[in-house]
Amino acid sequence: MTEPWRLSPERCFDADPARRAVAVRLYAEVRNLPLVCPHGHVDPALLAEPGATPGSPAELFIIPDHYVFRMLYSQGVPLEALGVPARDGTVVETDPRAIWRRFCEHFHLFRATPTGLWLAAELVELFGVTEKPSAESADRIYDHLVACLAHEDYTPRRLFERFRIETLCTTDAATDRLDHHRTLRADGWENRVRPTFRPDAVVNLHAEGWRASVEHLGALSDIDITGYAQFIRALEQRRAYFKELGATATDHAAETPYTARLSATEAERIFTAALRGTATATDAAAFTGHMLIEFARMSVEDGLVMQLHAGSLRNHNDALFSRFGPDRGADVPLATEWTRNLRPLLNAYGADPRFRLILFTLDESTYSRELAPLAGHYPAVLLGPPWWFFDSVNGMRRYFETVVETAGLHNTAGFNDDTRAFASIPARHDVWRRVSCDWIAGLMLEGLIDEDDAHEMALDCAVRLARKAYNLGSGA
Amino acid sequence: MTEPWRLSPERCFDADPARRAVAVRLYAEVRNLPLVCPHGHVDPALLAEPGATPGSPAELFIIPDHYVFRMLYSQGVPLEALGVPARDGTVVETDPRAIWRRFCEHFHLFRATPTGLWLAAELVELFGVTEKPSAESADRIYDHLVACLAHEDYTPRRLFERFRIETLCTTDAATDRLDHHRTLRADGWENRVRPTFRPDAVVNLHAEGWRASVEHLGALSDIDITGYAQFIRALEQRRAYFKELGATATDHAAETPYTARLSATEAERIFTAALRGTATATDAAAFTGHMLIEFARMSVEDGLVMQLHAGSLRNHNDALFSRFGPDRGADVPLATEWTRNLRPLLNAYGADPRFRLILFTLDESTYSRELAPLAGHYPAVLLGPPWWFFDSVNGMRRYFETVVETAGLHNTAGFNDDTRAFASIPARHDVWRRVSCDWIAGLMLEGLIDEDDAHEMALDCAVRLARKAYNLGSGA
Amino acid sequence: MTEPWRLSPERCFDADPARRAVAVRLYAEVRNLPLVCPHGHVDPALLAEPGATPGSPAELFIIPDHYVFRMLYSQGVPLEALGVPARDGTVVETDPRAIWRRFCEHFHLFRATPTGLWLAAELVELFGVTEKPSAESADRIYDHLVACLAHEDYTPRRLFERFRIETLCTTDAATDRLDHHRTLRADGWENRVRPTFRPDAVVNLHAEGWRASVEHLGALSDIDITGYAQFIRALEQRRAYFKELGATATDHAAETPYTARLSATEAERIFTAALRGTATATDAAAFTGHMLIEFARMSVEDGLVMQLHAGSLRNHNDALFSRFGPDRGADVPLATEWTRNLRPLLNAYGADPRFRLILFTLDESTYSRELAPLAGHYPAVLLGPPWWFFDSVNGMRRYFETVVETAGLHNTAGFNDDTRAFASIPARHDVWRRVSCDWIAGLMLEGLIDEDDAHEMALDCAVRLARKAYNLGSGA
Repeated sequence: MTEPWRLSPERCFDADPARRAVAVRLYAEVRNLPLVCPHGHVDPALLAEPGATPGSPAELFIIPDHYVFRMLYSQGVPLEALGVPARDGTVVETDPRAIWRRFCEHFHLFRATPTGLWLAAELVELFGVTEKPSAESADRIYDHLVACLAHEDYTPRRLFERFRIETLCTTDAATDRLDHHRTLRADGWENRVRPTFRPDAVVNLHAEGWRASVEHLGALSDIDITGYAQFIRALEQRRAYFKELGATATDHAAETPYTARLSATEAERIFTAALRGTATATDAAAFTGHMLIEFARMSVEDGLVMQLHAGSLRNHNDALFSRFGPDRGADVPLATEWTRNLRPLLNAYGADPRFRLILFTLDESTYSRELAPLAGHYPAVLLGPPWWFFDSVNGMRRYFETVVETAGLHNTAGFNDDTRAFASIPARHDVWRRVSCDWIAGLMLEGLIDEDDAHEMALDCAVRLARKAYNLGSGA
Repeated sequence: MTEPWRLSPERCFDADPARRAVAVRLYAEVRNLPLVCPHGHVDPALLAEPGATPGSPAELFIIPDHYVFRMLYSQGVPLEALGVPARDGTVVETDPRAIWRRFCEHFHLFRATPTGLWLAAELVELFGVTEKPSAESADRIYDHLVACLAHEDYTPRRLFERFRIETLCTTDAATDRLDHHRTLRADGWENRVRPTFRPDAVVNLHAEGWRASVEHLGALSDIDITGYAQFIRALEQRRAYFKELGATATDHAAETPYTARLSATEAERIFTAALRGTATATDAAAFTGHMLIEFARMSVEDGLVMQLHAGSLRNHNDALFSRFGPDRGADVPLATEWTRNLRPLLNAYGADPRFRLILFTLDESTYSRELAPLAGHYPAVLLGPPWWFFDSVNGMRRYFETVVETAGLHNTAGFNDDTRAFASIPARHDVWRRVSCDWIAGLMLEGLIDEDDAHEMALDCAVRLARKAYNLGSGA
Repeated sequence: MTEPWRLSPERCFDADPARRAVAVRLYAEVRNLPLVCPHGHVDPALLAEPGATPGSPAELFIIPDHYVFRMLYSQGVPLEALGVPARDGTVVETDPRAIWRRFCEHFHLFRATPTGLWLAAELVELFGVTEKPSAESADRIYDHLVACLAHEDYTPRRLFERFRIETLCTTDAATDRLDHHRTLRADGWENRVRPTFRPDAVVNLHAEGWRASVEHLGALSDIDITGYAQFIRALEQRRAYFKELGATATDHAAETPYTARLSATEAERIFTAALRGTATATDAAAFTGHMLIEFARMSVEDGLVMQLHAGSLRNHNDALFSRFGPDRGADVPLATEWTRNLRPLLNAYGADPRFRLILFTLDESTYSRELAPLAGHYPAVLLGPPWWFFDSVNGMRRYFETVVETAGLHNTAGFNDDTRAFASIPARHDVWRRVSCDWIAGLMLEGLIDEDDAHEMALDCAVRLARKAYNLGSGA
C-alpha cells in the first residue's frame, strides 16, 4: 500500500532551515486571515441563485478553466475530448467521467506548475482526496468528488463561508443589469460580493457585436446613443449604477497601454463612423487610447479605482477561436511599453489625489524598468500583483525581487486571485501568503528588515494593501 | 607544493545541505546515462575519416572555438596571435605551443563562465590534467596533452564510445553531399551519427554566394532551378535525401522569426529577381518569412522536425568579418518578437499533429512572456533548451524558473549541446544534468513536487525529452 | 525599554550558514579598502570651499535627494512639504525640523529598499543614531543629528578622510570653469578629487538654454562658435582643460544609444540650423547620434575614458517639471536597444586599443541579451555597474548573475556610487562589497570557482576593476 497523497505543510518555503522557520512563523500569523478578493471572474449567479452548484467534477475543475485545458491541448488532447463547448456545432464529449479520466491520465503535465499546485490543494485540502490523479485512480477520485459535491457543505455559499472570503469582486460588462448583485444585496450579502465595471465591449469599436452592445447600453441607461456625448453620458450613468450596487472599481483591458486624448471633434467623428460601421483599425486604437483617459477622468470624479490590464494578444489561434470562442487558453503576451504610452494619462491625472490607477502587466521585463519607477513616483499609480501566467511561485518571487526595491511595498496593491475557478480561490491566496512570508523571511535573515518590519509587511501583503488599494474597508 | 587541481564533485549544486543531498541522489541516477545530442556542429569528417584526430591542443581547445577566443580578444589579444585563420592573407600564429601559452596566461578571464567550467572539466576529467592553466604551468600541461592525444584512446571514435553518445546529429548545408554520413552508414554507425538539413545558405537571398549555392543545389538534385517551383522541388528532394541518410530534423536560422506567406506570384517574382541579382533587402526578408512557412509545410508532409534559431545579429564587427569571416564571436543578440511574428506559421500548422517546431531564443525576456505561453498552447510547439550564451549554470536556472511554470516540462525539448567542440560534449551535458537535478531538488525541498515526480523529471531532462522531441527512439 | 536600533553585521549575505561564512571571510578582506569613486555627482564646492557644511538634517538627507523625496511624493506627500525648492515661486516648507518629521513619519515606506538601507547605515554607523525614525522618535533624532553636524568631525573634508575615499570624480558641465577643482589642486587634493567632462547641455540641441550654453562654451574657449568646426574645436579644447585638471573620463547621457555618423555637410547644416533656432527634433536626434561617434574619436585621441548612460525618459511629469525643474525623481526608464544602435560607433572604434567605452543601462533585459555579448567581444567595451534603480541588493545580484557568465568579470568596470548624497557614499560601496562577496561565496560553495579565484575576484570588485577601467592608478 502506498502512502496517502499529501501536501507539504511547508510548501513554497525556501529550503534553508533558518529562513523557513521565520517563514513558518510569519505565515502562522496570516494564513487564517479573511480573503480579500478585489478582482476576479467568479459568476455571481453561483452565489445568488438558490439552487446553484459547482456541477460535476469535470464542470468544477476542467471545462471552464482554460489554465487546465490549454495544457492538455498543448500535448495533443483536443478540446472536444475535454467537453469544452464549441460554438460551431461541433460535437464534444458530454460524459463528465470520461473527461475526468482524460484529465487524470495527463496529470503529470502539471508538474511544477501553479495549476498543479492549486489543483492539488483543492483536491487534498478542500475535498480530502488521498490519491494522486492518474489513469488508475481516476474513477475512485471521481466517485469521491461526486459524493462530496452532493453534500450541503459544498454549496457555493457554504464554501464562501468556509473560505473566509471577506469581499469578492466580480467583473461585469457595462451592460450587465447586475440582477445577481441585487439578489445578493437583498440577501444581505452586499458587502461580501461587489460588481466591477468593465466596459471593454462598448469601448473596443471592433469587438464582436459592438453595435449591439452600444444599443444595449443605451437601452439600459435610457439614453439614445447617437453620438459620442450620449455615449459618455451613458457610461457615467452605468458607473453610478455599479457604484450604487457596491462597486469600488472599474477594469479595462487593452492590447497596449497607449493613451492619447482626442479632440472632441475627432472623438465624435470616430464614434459616429463606428456607428456607421466605417471606423478603421487606426480609429479603434485611437479611440481606446482616448477612452482610457476619459475613464481616468470619470474615476477622478466618481472615485472608482481604475484597473488596467494590458499586453495580451487575444485569440492567437484563429481556428480554435472560430470553433470555441474567446478565453480558450490561446492568448499570448506581447512586449509592452508603459513609459511613453501612459504619459498622457498620467500627466492629466497621475498626481490627482482623487485618482487611483492599478496596473497589470504580462511583460515581466517592465516590472523593474517601467512599472516600479512609475509606481514609485506618481501618487495615483499602484502596481497590481503578478498576473495570469505569473500568478505562480516563481512569478511572485520575481515580482517581489524586481518591484519592491524601487516602488516600495506601499505602492503595490496586494493580491487578487483573478479567477473564474471559485474553488481555487483559497489555494491561490495561500500560495501568495506563503511566498510573501518566505520573501519577507529572506529579507529578515539577510538583515535587510527587522522583526517589526516583517510583521507589518506580512499583514500588508495578506490583506491590508488590497483593502486599501480598492477602498474596501474592514473592521479587522 | 600546492594541491592538485580538482573539480568539486558537487559543483553546480545549491549550497543548502538538504537540497544538495537530494540533487546528488537524483544526479547519481542520470549522470551515466547515454548522451542524446540532437543538435550540434561537430564535423562528421572527424568520425568518418579513418585518420582524423583532434589535432594539437591549440586546434582542439582554441582555434575553432569562438567561445574561447572571443573572450581573449575582448581583453586585447588579437585573433592573429591565437592562430585563428584569416581569409585576407594576414599572417597568423602557427606555433600551437605559443597559442596555448597565450591562452593559459589569460585563463583567469574565464572565471565564473560556462566556458571556464567546460574547459576545466575537459582538462581534468578527460585528460587528467592536475594543474590549473597559467603562464607558469602552460608548457607542462601542453606536453601532457600532446602525449594524451598521441594515444589511441583519444581518437574521435574511441572518444565517442567513451562519451557514451547515443546519437549525434550534425548540421549540414542543403547542398552537402553527406559523403561522411554515407561512410558512417557503411561503417555501421547510421543510428549514431545523423545529418540535419540546414538550408539557410540557399534561402537567404543576400547570403554570400547565394547564386552559386542555388546552382549547386540544382546540380545535386538534377533540377534546373530557373524559378521558384524548381527551387521548392529541389529542396524537397534534398530533404528526402537527408531523411534517407538518417536525418530526423531540419534547422533554420533567421535574424527575426518573422513569418508571412507570399502569393505564388510574389514568391516567383522575388526568386527570379534574386537570380538576376536585383532582389532588395525587403524582398529577402519577405522571402525568408515565406520560406519558414513553406518549410513548416514540408515538415508536415515529410515528418522532419523543424528547428528555428532566431535573434542573432551576425558579424557585428565589420573589420573582423572582412578579415576572419563568419562565426568569430562577433554575433550579438537582438530583442526578438515571437508572438506576432510566428502567428501566420502557427495558424497554418501549429495544431497539426504531424508537425513539430522547436524554438530557440537569445532574448531571455521572451521565455516567460512569449515562448512558454506559445509552447503551453500550440500542440506543435516545443521550446528548445537555453541557447548559446545561455547554455550556462545561470542560463539554465533562469530557463527552468521562467519556462516550466507556464509551458510545463513536457513542452520543452530537453538538452542539446550545439557545439563544434567535440571534446566538450560530455562537460556540457554534465552541467545540464547537474543543474536540472539541482532545480528538481529545489522543487522537492519546497514541497512543490514529490519523490516520484522528481525521479521522472530527472530522467525527462537527461534523455527522454530530447529523444521524444527529435523522434530519436531508443531501446533504453 | 526597546532595544537600540542596530544593523545586522551580516546584512546582504545569503542565509545559508556555509555560504555566509565564506562571504564574511571575503568581506573582511575588502571592507576597509579605500573607496574608488570614479563617477558621481557630489558638488566639488562641498570639499573646496572652506566653510562648506552638509547643512541641516533636512538638507543632508532629504531636500537634495530625489531617491528620498520621490518615494514620499508617491505616497501623497507634496514636494512643497519637503522643502524641495520650486522655480515658479511656489512657497515651500522652510523649517528643517518639520521636513525631518514628515520624513520620519513615512520611514516605513523605505522598507526593503536600497534607500532605506543606505539611510539606516548613515544614521547608525555615521551618526550613531540608536532609534529607528518614526513620528515618535523624529525630534530626538533631529537634535542628535544637529549636535553631530556642529562638530568638526562632520566637516566634508574630515568625512572624506573618514570615508577613506581614494579618488572622487565629480560630473561637470563642459562649460564649468572648474574653479573648485583648481582650489582643490592648490590645496594638494588633485589626486583625490577629479572632474569629469559632461557636454550634454551643448550637444543636445533642444536642451533648455542650448544657445546660451554654446555661447558660454565659446567664451570659455576663446573661440567664436559660428559653425560646426569651431564647436568641435571648442569641445576639444575644453577636454584638454579638464584633462589638465585631472579628468580621466567623460560622461554622456542620451535617451537612446543611437549612433550614426553624419557627413561634414550635414553636421554643419544641422549645427547652424540650431544656432538659428530652426533645428528639428529629427535633426537633434541625428546630431546626438553623430556626436557620440565624434566623442569616441576624441577619446581615441586624448585618452579620456568615455561613459555612456542611456535609456532614461527625463521629466516624465510635466507639471512637476514646470514647477520644480529637472532631477526630481520623475525620470522613467525606457526599453533600450544597444546592438544595432552602437554598431556604427563600435565599427569605428570598438577594437581600437586606445579607446575605452563604459556602458550603463536602465533596461536589465539588455544585460544578458546585448551588453554582456558586446562587452565580451569588443576590446574597448566595459559594462558599468548596476545603475540608479538597480544600485540595490537585488539589482547587483541580477547583474552578477546575468552579466558575468557571458562578459567575464574583467569586462566590467567595478562599482561607482553615482550619488549627489555625499554622506551616503560609504553605505553604497559597502552594499556593493557585501553583495559581491556574497555572490563570490555562492560561486565557491557551488564549486564553480576556487579559493584563489574568490580572493582575486573580491579584490577586483572592491577596487581593482574601477581603478583599471578609469585609469586611476594607485600605490595600493
